[in-house]
Amino acid sequence: MNRPIVYFFTDFGAQGPYLGQMETALLVRAPQARVINLLSDAPPFSPKPSAYLLGALLPWLAPESVLVGVVDPGVGTDRKALLLESDGRRFIGPDNGLFASLLKSSGTRAWEILQDPAQLSATFHGRDLFAPAAGRLLGEGDLERQPMPRHRLVGADWPGQLAEIIYIDHYGNAMSGLRAGDFTPDTVFRLGEVRLFRRHTFADVPPGEAFWYENSLGLVEVAVNRGRSDTTLGVQVGTPIRPE
Amino acid sequence: MNRPIVYFFTDFGAQGPYLGQMETALLVRAPQARVINLLSDAPPFSPKPSAYLLGALLPWLAPESVLVGVVDPGVGTDRKALLLESDGRRFIGPDNGLFASLLKSSGTRAWEILQDPAQLSATFHGRDLFAPAAGRLLGEGDLERQPMPRHRLVGADWPGQLAEIIYIDHYGNAMSGLRAGDFTPDTVFRLGEVRLFRRHTFADVPPGEAFWYENSLGLVEVAVNRGRSDTTLGVQVGTPIRPE
Amino acid sequence: MNRPIVYFFTDFGAQGPYLGQMETALLVRAPQARVINLLSDAPPFSPKPSAYLLGALLPWLAPESVLVGVVDPGVGTDRKALLLESDGRRFIGPDNGLFASLLKSSGTRAWEILQDPAQLSATFHGRDLFAPAAGRLLGEGDLERQPMPRHRLVGADWPGQLAEIIYIDHYGNAMSGLRAGDFTPDTVFRLGEVRLFRRHTFADVPPGEAFWYENSLGLVEVAVNRGRSDTTLGVQVGTPIRPE
Repeated sequence: MNRPIVYFFTDFGAQGPYLGQMETALLVRAPQARVINLLSDAPPFSPKPSAYLLGALLPWLAPESVLVGVVDPGVGTDRKALLLESDGRRFIGPDNGLFASLLKSSGTRAWEILQDPAQLSATFHGRDLFAPAAGRLLGEGDLERQPMPRHRLVGADWPGQLAEIIYIDHYGNAMSGLRAGDFTPDTVFRLGEVRLFRRHTFADVPPGEAFWYENSLGLVEVAVNRGRSDTTLGVQVGTPIRPE
Repeated sequence: MNRPIVYFFTDFGAQGPYLGQMETALLVRAPQARVINLLSDAPPFSPKPSAYLLGALLPWLAPESVLVGVVDPGVGTDRKALLLESDGRRFIGPDNGLFASLLKSSGTRAWEILQDPAQLSATFHGRDLFAPAAGRLLGEGDLERQPMPRHRLVGADWPGQLAEIIYIDHYGNAMSGLRAGDFTPDTVFRLGEVRLFRRHTFADVPPGEAFWYENSLGLVEVAVNRGRSDTTLGVQVGTPIRPE
Repeated sequence: MNRPIVYFFTDFGAQGPYLGQMETALLVRAPQARVINLLSDAPPFSPKPSAYLLGALLPWLAPESVLVGVVDPGVGTDRKALLLESDGRRFIGPDNGLFASLLKSSGTRAWEILQDPAQLSATFHGRDLFAPAAGRLLGEGDLERQPMPRHRLVGADWPGQLAEIIYIDHYGNAMSGLRAGDFTPDTVFRLGEVRLFRRHTFADVPPGEAFWYENSLGLVEVAVNRGRSDTTLGVQVGTPIRPE
């Protein structure tokens, strides 16, 4: 039995009744799907940092999976709903830049999903539009859509990297939108007044010291060994970070 | 293969070792079941607000699903364990009002689940009683039970709506136990000293403004655009809300 | 279809992009597996208290399940990766004491998992090593390994119980590493200056009173009825607790 993986990438939080309603809307249409909550604490209402985080996660998604992305401050407005196909994977979500990382590639195809507003709540298109669309894509239904040129989508002109903090994790480590592979190991980053040197791993630095390293997604990440970069350094999503 | 959906509706939090133990107790008895954690942060120890939230979620549950509800401050006392059947769905949990929304309907049938106290821990009937009962219902076992008249269950006499805040979500939005469809759009609600006007969606109000709207469950919900109603307005579960 | 249960036991938090990447690494290799997030908020960077919590959870794991444990402050160093087999269940994780509770039993067998460092990130062996190892164990691949004498593993000489707080749950209840069955009901515990008497269940004590009881895992647990032991008593992971 083919059991496609469907990822949810949202800013809903791990709690609350929202993810379960989305999962229901998917599974009643595609009972064979498997749901993985890839991220439920994307920066709230913030498609731009979310887009760079999603871009860094792409290599780690299962082949032929479907990702439903719901970071959607424009819900209830006339922003479009999208289906994208790239490298064998499909992506469903709002046209607000969340999928910007896919738009550089000439292999990416895009469609607008045609919605019937009568069936939509004003505030929860994850349940009413995006998860059902994934269900129809994988199930027996049909998804009404029309091709869109990808260069016209929001985010098509965004840069490949973002010199800002894009996510702060459970441990208080701060991911940036910069790819570590583009910087030499002796690069010193500035984060406000703080200068950050590269270390290979947490075991290399004394407790309490701030440093940068290549994280497991290939991004420049700032950490304080056995501490939190957000409280210690005052870092938050959107804080600029730049090489000296 | 029939793969029934089993919802968990609890106040356990998204973390901790409790949900995984419940899921195990279910799956060893009914390996074909699929678990959806519908809600893990129901108001702790508070069956009444939880009941109105659960009632609002009913239309969004999958057909023929089973819901295991564990908001259970009376665990370890002699409160009864229940099985309810309503509209093709089944519900398992304590007799403390959590399922009050089902008790108005003449189509609802109720049973007391007969427990063997020797097999129960004093504090975790989710794992020891309710999840195993769902497993036996869906699996090969048999569930010992006796019919109960639904009008004798806790919550049978509760009102259809509750003029209080019943849940505060990840974003700081505050759901009430009032159905928006019963109020005209020009209704002004009072929440303490604050007067709240209706807006259609977040995009309709400037950042920082408090308002009410019909949420995706059909309830009157209070929000502050790009802010939190709980910290800004001092709202918490149990705060009264009433139309002027 | 055989559908083995795979538990994740981590300190990653319920949020963040880590669990979803681990789940992917498992499912692409063993599509038939079912994942249960048994615990995602183990004491961070703290294999020792985590080990006693894991030990208490063992009786509640499904037969023939696999547990992937990632509480791994030594990631990126040369600490070994382990496969253990005990009582029909298998355990995969770092050699840092996390599986100490298994090492007393003569029936436990142990192997070192042979790693190719070239395929590992410096900071996320859950995704790069441990989850793939579980996938190969359950899937078609092969897991390269060599037998290890269990008495040489970290934690082999740890005591059977730990007179400390090992976990604080969602409600603010504090679990200790002591087995309640080894203490008579009239035992009085000291936690700093506070004396704690045994109560059977929450319903037995007035709101605000601190007490101890046998929790659902068989451990001595400290609670404050309708309150939080951590904020009320200043308890945290590592706080000593001892019988008078």
